[in-house]
Amino acid sequence: MKPMAAISSQELVKGVFEGRISAIARMITRAESGDKDSEEALGQIYKASRNAHIVGITGVPGSGKSTLVAELCKTLRKGGRKIGVIAVDPTSPFSGGAILGDRIRMGELVGDEGVFIRSMATRGALGGLSRATLPAVDILDAAGYDMIIIETVGVGQDEVDVVRSAHTTVVVSAPGLGDDIQAIKAGILEIADIHVVSKCDRSDANKTISELKNMLAIGLGLSEPSAWTPSVIATSATKNEGIDTLAEAIDAHLDTLKKSGEWQTRRLAMAEMRLLKTAEDILRDQFERHRAGKVQALVKQLTDAEIEPHGAARKLLKDVWKEILQ
Amino acid sequence: MKPMAAISSQELVKGVFEGRISAIARMITRAESGDKDSEEALGQIYKASRNAHIVGITGVPGSGKSTLVAELCKTLRKGGRKIGVIAVDPTSPFSGGAILGDRIRMGELVGDEGVFIRSMATRGALGGLSRATLPAVDILDAAGYDMIIIETVGVGQDEVDVVRSAHTTVVVSAPGLGDDIQAIKAGILEIADIHVVSKCDRSDANKTISELKNMLAIGLGLSEPSAWTPSVIATSATKNEGIDTLAEAIDAHLDTLKKSGEWQTRRLAMAEMRLLKTAEDILRDQFERHRAGKVQALVKQLTDAEIEPHGAARKLLKDVWKEILQ
Repeated sequence: MKPMAAISSQELVKGVFEGRISAIARMITRAESGDKDSEEALGQIYKASRNAHIVGITGVPGSGKSTLVAELCKTLRKGGRKIGVIAVDPTSPFSGGAILGDRIRMGELVGDEGVFIRSMATRGALGGLSRATLPAVDILDAAGYDMIIIETVGVGQDEVDVVRSAHTTVVVSAPGLGDDIQAIKAGILEIADIHVVSKCDRSDANKTISELKNMLAIGLGLSEPSAWTPSVIATSATKNEGIDTLAEAIDAHLDTLKKSGEWQTRRLAMAEMRLLKTAEDILRDQFERHRAGKVQALVKQLTDAEIEPHGAARKLLKDVWKEILQ
Repeated sequence: MKPMAAISSQELVKGVFEGRISAIARMITRAESGDKDSEEALGQIYKASRNAHIVGITGVPGSGKSTLVAELCKTLRKGGRKIGVIAVDPTSPFSGGAILGDRIRMGELVGDEGVFIRSMATRGALGGLSRATLPAVDILDAAGYDMIIIETVGVGQDEVDVVRSAHTTVVVSAPGLGDDIQAIKAGILEIADIHVVSKCDRSDANKTISELKNMLAIGLGLSEPSAWTPSVIATSATKNEGIDTLAEAIDAHLDTLKKSGEWQTRRLAMAEMRLLKTAEDILRDQFERHRAGKVQALVKQLTDAEIEPHGAARKLLKDVWKEILQ
């Protein structure tokens, strides 16, 4: 095999379309590096047929998401489907990249060519949902993966972002995580197509399940009528319970989306999210490019209260605009 | 008192500078509404002298942040300082605003004119750290509050954002929140000036404290040398332990920042964060404004893969640009 630098983007794109693992991994790395050179290649990949079922799995820390994803992969593999997993981890300034936890937990899947797992760090202060996450989904899609799982850790913005990037969203809760969790559930209730209560071997699991069902019942009265009614699935990774039910529910959700008119609505929402996120990425790149120059001068003025934030931001947008157009 | 609509922004600014509670509350509401009319007023407020100590308090759900903030306020009030609290909650689609939990927990502080508490929702899909958070901090600063606490729920992006908006950052952990928490701690380790382990009446608290200290010891070797060494403070809200120590550490951190050269570095970093966030807000506003027109057309093309995301985003930026300049 040629050394990495010698492989052109066009060769990589060809490799991705042929489903070659090494090409997929390298193309994702190029997407992460964000170099101009890979833009055209990623554009071609985006335009390639998109047949994958994109599933977002999210939940609070400690909810056992990673274990659940690993079990789900094993179950889905029995049907022969090719599964891609993109795990978006919080930034680890020390490791300089994704935390290895997820990869370790998914160790049992190593050696199965039908499962591709990639951990990604969020991009520090200016990141959010890592900018390479959605290009990575495109790459796996174009490479012929049947289902692509985006796993996010966290509460708040990322949950909302992931639902706009997935056809089906699974929100994982766990018993015994305290009061604050309930408050957060209220916020993510609306975004879940499927609720999972993990660790259901625990004695306090029933309490969590019934609380969740109560909240859903209240929510149903307030939300738009839909062809799909979110369900609550109890799972236990240690007892290997509920995973089949979850796999079936994920398939059933896609089926319902496609049979109802909601498939197109969801795809449009995903594209809208993608458009805004990409525009923001371009803005951030420009900001980085001008950091030592125009940005620094404005930051100094702002610190000394010689200018106010809105005026400064307008000035920055104006100054960097010419280059954005190039 | 005049009806709300009749009060001009200039009258409100005057009221804020005089420290009047009703003017502060109304000005924050105008900042939240994001109307053009309040921009000039918020600019004036930003430029007013900024003497407040801004403290970010963050941590995972279930860590007992809100209780800690309430106890901290009570302790700080003994010294006579005026305290402002901005609590940024995850979006609750059902309540249409901030969850009331924090306000309820802080009930004991009601009636104390020296403490101003405001809960804010994050702004759904396009929010992150709510765009009114930093203007609200400016308002409280200009109104003469000595310390302003920004409390955020969540893990990931918000933590990193809050540290860039605060002079002093406190990260709260709690015992018994499971394995994933440890992974997240690795991510937020570097951003904390002070670590708190809450709920230290629990028997498993010592384990959390020593794990945290071990991680800090590893981190110290990797990070830049600094005048300040992050400490780990054990607190118990039920036993009212450790809160005095925390209050002292927060003061000591500011003192160290000011005596070392790091004060200016931190202020520049805060202004840089502010600049980028404001530029992004302007972009999002434009996006909203064109949602039914230019955006919809591009989204349709993107969904049909007639265009790729980068090209679409450049086109959008170009199309909406003229109006940004106005």
